[in-house]
Amino acid sequence: MKILSDKTPVVVNITNYVAMNFNANALLAVGASPIMSFYDKEMDDLLAIANSLVINIGCLDDNEIRGMHAAAAAANKYGKPWVLDPVGVGASKVRTETAVELITKYHPAIVRCNASEIMVLHGTACQTRGVDSAEPVEAARSCAREFAAEHGTVVAVSGAVDYITDGKREAECSKGSPMMAKVTTMGCCASAVCAAFAAVMPPFEAAVHAMDAMGTAGQNAAARSEGTGSLAMHFIDELYRLP
Amino acid sequence: MKILSDKTPVVVNITNYVAMNFNANALLAVGASPIMSFYDKEMDDLLAIANSLVINIGCLDDNEIRGMHAAAAAANKYGKPWVLDPVGVGASKVRTETAVELITKYHPAIVRCNASEIMVLHGTACQTRGVDSAEPVEAARSCAREFAAEHGTVVAVSGAVDYITDGKREAECSKGSPMMAKVTTMGCCASAVCAAFAAVMPPFEAAVHAMDAMGTAGQNAAARSEGTGSLAMHFIDELYRLP
Amino acid sequence: MKILSDKTPVVVNITNYVAMNFNANALLAVGASPIMSFYDKEMDDLLAIANSLVINIGCLDDNEIRGMHAAAAAANKYGKPWVLDPVGVGASKVRTETAVELITKYHPAIVRCNASEIMVLHGTACQTRGVDSAEPVEAARSCAREFAAEHGTVVAVSGAVDYITDGKREAECSKGSPMMAKVTTMGCCASAVCAAFAAVMPPFEAAVHAMDAMGTAGQNAAARSEGTGSLAMHFIDELYRLP
Repeated sequence: MKILSDKTPVVVNITNYVAMNFNANALLAVGASPIMSFYDKEMDDLLAIANSLVINIGCLDDNEIRGMHAAAAAANKYGKPWVLDPVGVGASKVRTETAVELITKYHPAIVRCNASEIMVLHGTACQTRGVDSAEPVEAARSCAREFAAEHGTVVAVSGAVDYITDGKREAECSKGSPMMAKVTTMGCCASAVCAAFAAVMPPFEAAVHAMDAMGTAGQNAAARSEGTGSLAMHFIDELYRLP
Repeated sequence: MKILSDKTPVVVNITNYVAMNFNANALLAVGASPIMSFYDKEMDDLLAIANSLVINIGCLDDNEIRGMHAAAAAANKYGKPWVLDPVGVGASKVRTETAVELITKYHPAIVRCNASEIMVLHGTACQTRGVDSAEPVEAARSCAREFAAEHGTVVAVSGAVDYITDGKREAECSKGSPMMAKVTTMGCCASAVCAAFAAVMPPFEAAVHAMDAMGTAGQNAAARSEGTGSLAMHFIDELYRLP
Repeated sequence: MKILSDKTPVVVNITNYVAMNFNANALLAVGASPIMSFYDKEMDDLLAIANSLVINIGCLDDNEIRGMHAAAAAANKYGKPWVLDPVGVGASKVRTETAVELITKYHPAIVRCNASEIMVLHGTACQTRGVDSAEPVEAARSCAREFAAEHGTVVAVSGAVDYITDGKREAECSKGSPMMAKVTTMGCCASAVCAAFAAVMPPFEAAVHAMDAMGTAGQNAAARSEGTGSLAMHFIDELYRLP
């Protein structure tokens, strides 16, 4: 995408092992330059040269958590925007604690999540079932608005209709395809693309642009896919071809 | 597959980094809901909500081994079936020790492996050469039967003709394609699919269903592939399209 | 490729999490047998049976660094050639220190890198920007020649025109496609393929064969790709079909 490739923002990714390859290819396809790392000892060096950061808690361990704190602290130090993807928050105590601590201490510019995850973060009783959402986006809208206002962040909730809010403004994106939910780390990818846009524009606009790019590429890819394997491949092609 | 998507079983995967993305996509394609993790601190929480577990020793380190013990113990505690994939057992002492300890302590419902691996576990002299089998399935059949009977488990041996036994019953699956052996983590994927089926039926039947699904999808995919790259993609599509 | 599949060399890979699946599939496609591991406790066992080793510093942590030292030491002990991929050297102090220490202590047979990376290793001022090169290959040629001569190694610099030198001899490969730079871990893959060839021929010839195989497959794949997603898939197919 011209708006990204003109600047080729460097995006540092602390992400889960499932998403690493797909997200790096997605970031390259939209015109960003990804660095995948979770090593606490290099986060200060990397954030000094990076333009934005995404932290995804999909595969935690003690090393990763150390790396996440070092990265978020360095992002704050250098004034670089960062995106949180609280994958599976609510599925285990350590995921919930890690997400809440990162938000409270380091103030993400954008929280990109699904409906169950924002309801857990907001403290609303809801059904979680592993890492896939068991709640529709509609039920999560008021949670997202309140959470965004309280924490001074942007919340982007993925679903059949994506919902983006900064607590005051709201936007929707109804593009995409139901098949996208059956390709692993499609949500993680949305978070990485949010970080790429957040490097070149304010957080609310970045989240809207990112969700639109994801939906457009996913919809075009689904139209010519025979299953979720070809969808994953066509999706990267379609991201690469966005103008 | 309707038999899985009707229940959407949650399958916890402690697997190697090579297999993470492919296995997650395979599990989504057949109708399961994968969680990929190896963090010991969340295994009790995850197994409480999961329907089954797969442990794959393809990429070991001290953290992973801790996670494996925590996960298998939690699976036993909550009565959830678990599948062991002893990748490359025999290639290093630590792999052999880890596999034997997990089997002895936590009693997997299914051991899904190749011919060399079951021969190593059985204690029969054989040729191992890295992580790919150097022995035909035929040579491994009596090892598999004896091992299954002794440990009260099901053994599923992948090869040109797959062989499944619980020590008394036997089944074969001759579907598939030789090209499948040239796509990395195809065996790991079979183990994950075994775990998905083990969530909804007894272990012997689960292993037979899983190997049949793998063989059917692989055979259909190979028929329209130009190499191993397109085979990997078509394979996920074919899993997604199984009735 | 017949020259590799005749011997099916076992290649141990300590590589980053982004590259694991793609590199394993690439090695299988060219006829090698990959083992992906970074566990220090099994490196002696694995290198005893392996034919070559590749170490890629793309995702560092303390565990990985321990594994790298154990692997390189075992490669030297058993006389197995090893390839270093100094991904992102210069982007952080710990990457530079790790790469320099591995080279100085364990003498890689081949260093496969991009233009910025060889300039950093050589000590020449240059622009680094994350893990993608900001320098043309031309500027790096004299650095590569001097570095190769000083360290008794082969240097293979990827770029629009690949450049291979052992300090005296030089070779070029102008095959490939600019789109290859937009597929993640394409460079990491070149390093793995270098290690496969280094198992069956001397390092300079191995690097030339490997870069030619990469360029040929990439060029053929790009000719029938609609974006970087399909390029990644066709690339593995084309490697698989090389004679």
